[in-house]
Amino acid sequence: MQVTVLKVGGNVLNNPPLLSAALDYFAGLSEAAILVHGGGRRASEILREMGREPVMVGGRRVTDAPTLEIVTMVYAGGINKQVVADLQSRGCNAIGLSGADAGAVQAKKRAVGDVDYGFAGDVVAVDAERLLQFLKADLTPVLCPITHDGKGQLLNTNADTIASEAATALARRGAEVSLRYCFELPGVLRDINDPTSVLSPITPAVYRDLRSDGTVAGGMIPKLDNAFNAISAGVQEVIIADLDHMKSGSGTRIIGH
Amino acid sequence: MQVTVLKVGGNVLNNPPLLSAALDYFAGLSEAAILVHGGGRRASEILREMGREPVMVGGRRVTDAPTLEIVTMVYAGGINKQVVADLQSRGCNAIGLSGADAGAVQAKKRAVGDVDYGFAGDVVAVDAERLLQFLKADLTPVLCPITHDGKGQLLNTNADTIASEAATALARRGAEVSLRYCFELPGVLRDINDPTSVLSPITPAVYRDLRSDGTVAGGMIPKLDNAFNAISAGVQEVIIADLDHMKSGSGTRIIGH
Repeated sequence: MQVTVLKVGGNVLNNPPLLSAALDYFAGLSEAAILVHGGGRRASEILREMGREPVMVGGRRVTDAPTLEIVTMVYAGGINKQVVADLQSRGCNAIGLSGADAGAVQAKKRAVGDVDYGFAGDVVAVDAERLLQFLKADLTPVLCPITHDGKGQLLNTNADTIASEAATALARRGAEVSLRYCFELPGVLRDINDPTSVLSPITPAVYRDLRSDGTVAGGMIPKLDNAFNAISAGVQEVIIADLDHMKSGSGTRIIGH
Repeated sequence: MQVTVLKVGGNVLNNPPLLSAALDYFAGLSEAAILVHGGGRRASEILREMGREPVMVGGRRVTDAPTLEIVTMVYAGGINKQVVADLQSRGCNAIGLSGADAGAVQAKKRAVGDVDYGFAGDVVAVDAERLLQFLKADLTPVLCPITHDGKGQLLNTNADTIASEAATALARRGAEVSLRYCFELPGVLRDINDPTSVLSPITPAVYRDLRSDGTVAGGMIPKLDNAFNAISAGVQEVIIADLDHMKSGSGTRIIGH
């Protein structure tokens, strides 16, 4: 079975015309597909409206108990259900899932190291068989970045990681998987100020060089780590691009060798 | 197929030990089961924390656009996912669904009459076949009171009605359905101040008398209307009780004749 896992980032979610175009693209895919969405800025806005200042360390949210409630509401409720309703209106039979739903994505609370991320969850297992069952029943899973530990604790998990882990788990069960990260840039850029400097393809050797010379830094590192983990585990391709480049088949392509 | 549809009300959701006991009861049911939950007071609390005063008319929430966003977040996100995670921790493979998910419950925006309820949705159709498909796949649907119109609009729908409509749709597809409303009272009471005055059974003739003499009033009227609609449509029994009475098989039993 051919499956595309499309992850849409916060800057897509925050831009209604862009989100609409991304959902058009997604709903129009001819192969089976799974959408993964991040959080966007709405959680931070609501936290601030409720008098709480969001805390981020290294691009990741520190999730104390009140923050967990808010991100669960925003990601699994507000965003996920509007995306599902929007896909339904496009004739795509979407079904929104947190990791708790049908036990789709189990995680464990991140151990406290240099930073205590609070209720942050690292993925333990994706139930790929269940996702394939939904796809075969003509349902289109829409995964939000909330997981659970199987003991009743919800956890906040990075959406890029959920996309990568879902793609990997599907590949391990024999699916031919294309993993696509749709974000605001045309691809991974050699020069962040030059949108024509898209790097493609990126092999593991090229990635090592890009990291050591500092071309790739910050939030791009976990994204590319996720991408290479997926490739190593049998995902056929990983594309990183904005919507236009993705639609035209350009952008950054990650390959194993 | 035998199916129990259990609706837990706001006063159960608001009381953690009671909610926990209700989830123990639900997860322990031997037959296939669907949980429907209401909103509880959390949506009103969050509205107030965000500087908005909840507006209720005749026990129903007036849902303007900002209120719709909040109730979607609270019902489909915060409450639904915690309930799902709690059921998962009890070995019950729960899957949380708004009406948009898998197109489970389609509604239409209520026409503006004496009151403009805003984004309030009246149920048009429940996809009972899909719910039965989930049950046969050992998944336990947990429905929240958010629906959609199929055109991308989310809507706020009364949870009692969702429970009644789901039960009815399942009965129409041949399931033997027990519909159970779990709330804070031992049953429908002759004297609201006397918990021993449980009325049972209530037939349509008894109900007419109870309404005309004012014994049944307020929020109990739509609850009982829903119950009798379900019975007329083939639901085998409707039970209205608190958890203890429900567990012991007492409380109010609604029957067709």
